[in-house]
Amino acid sequence: KTALAAMRLFRPLSLLLATRRFCSGGGSGSDRIIFRQLFEPKSCTYTYLIGCQATRNAVYIDPVIETAERDANLVKQLGLNLVYAINTHLHADHVTGTGRLKALLPGCRSVISGAYKARADVHIEDGTKIDFGRLQLETRSTPGHTDGCLTYVLHSHAMAFTGDALLIRGCGRTDFQQGSPDRLYESVHSQIFGLPEHYLLYPAHDYTGQSVTTVAEEKKYNSRLTKSKAEFINIMNNLNLPYPKQIDTALPANMICGMQD
Amino acid sequence: KTALAAMRLFRPLSLLLATRRFCSGGGSGSDRIIFRQLFEPKSCTYTYLIGCQATRNAVYIDPVIETAERDANLVKQLGLNLVYAINTHLHADHVTGTGRLKALLPGCRSVISGAYKARADVHIEDGTKIDFGRLQLETRSTPGHTDGCLTYVLHSHAMAFTGDALLIRGCGRTDFQQGSPDRLYESVHSQIFGLPEHYLLYPAHDYTGQSVTTVAEEKKYNSRLTKSKAEFINIMNNLNLPYPKQIDTALPANMICGMQD
Repeated sequence: KTALAAMRLFRPLSLLLATRRFCSGGGSGSDRIIFRQLFEPKSCTYTYLIGCQATRNAVYIDPVIETAERDANLVKQLGLNLVYAINTHLHADHVTGTGRLKALLPGCRSVISGAYKARADVHIEDGTKIDFGRLQLETRSTPGHTDGCLTYVLHSHAMAFTGDALLIRGCGRTDFQQGSPDRLYESVHSQIFGLPEHYLLYPAHDYTGQSVTTVAEEKKYNSRLTKSKAEFINIMNNLNLPYPKQIDTALPANMICGMQD
Repeated sequence: KTALAAMRLFRPLSLLLATRRFCSGGGSGSDRIIFRQLFEPKSCTYTYLIGCQATRNAVYIDPVIETAERDANLVKQLGLNLVYAINTHLHADHVTGTGRLKALLPGCRSVISGAYKARADVHIEDGTKIDFGRLQLETRSTPGHTDGCLTYVLHSHAMAFTGDALLIRGCGRTDFQQGSPDRLYESVHSQIFGLPEHYLLYPAHDYTGQSVTTVAEEKKYNSRLTKSKAEFINIMNNLNLPYPKQIDTALPANMICGMQD
């Protein structure tokens, strides 16, 4: 928290000017963003690029090691300066791209929750503000899939990045890495469903070809989280999912932010 | 052209109010859109849902038959009224979802270029304005991948849907269905690169996990279309691509807008 707070360039004037619009070019406005949703097909992971159009400072959320070259190249082509490569959580299904992005884009700093005791340049927690250019992400603690899961909210553009806490019409599993259906239910209902209904929600994964949802939709149509807490816990405790294929290589690699090279 | 012109509900006041922003909820403004990019993994096709937030009228661009149920369900959940299911062209790599969507969402009308002599409810051409609610798509003829390829431009939101004429850093093949590298080069340079540089370009396919680009990026970084026309023609005539796997079933099915059921 302190590391990021010290690096603030601007107080978020954008919050006052907030248009609740998703801006990708042209026109005026001090808080315009460059936004890209990218996909890694093996683990069905979404990676997000958010850039401040005015200052060119940018962040990636949940980069994947296999697509780090693609993602570094995009940053260069768009004329951006990647200041942070941020994890929503310690992934079990793929190796994070934060380490490789640091090597490809010197100056970039890796970010993860302090809860995991993982190696990273910056450790954050509930309430940390991540400033880049004229933009700011608010960090919300949303444990339950793992105990260090974080959701990042870009209030100026009514967008939130939910990691594996909330997926489109679903949610992340709760049967490993200190997973807890009870905590996940509380996290989603308080920290994500507590956001305004029109906020766009971007998950870390989708397996059905969908790319985005809203708070209103998930409150109405999420197949698990619209249930009572007792029903939700029962569903989650009886999924009988297979052991994650990549977990034994992904967890140790992610404990050092994918810097095993 | 005449069929759609007669159905106009509103002249596009949105063009005067144009904010060049991508709006997905909240706030004021008469031209707010609901926008979703959807993916079909077998053919790597992007399907686009564009809805008018004020009137709830919506269109799909390039739906796929395999995902028609998913896409019809989304329209219902979002409380939209699907007025058109639109093809950018007669696809060779998958069967269009327009026929199945018509069955699932009565009142929806299928749309395709008149060039193919394919069965559809509405045949359009260069210059046709497609109105739905307070939104309007401009149709631009962009032949070269096929002779009936159309690009749709949503000027109010600085977005264009390029089909297979322009892909992210690439373009569609030109070796079947009246394909012509000469015509494709002219189409892209005049009709797509002639748009303002900040316009967002959404292709019908991507095979690398990327979802969107801009006119400025493609004018600078497209690996084929930044070449001279002679070089481009030489590249396209020497790709030696395999015969498309689905073409023999897709073309006849698409000649009747996927209504073979």
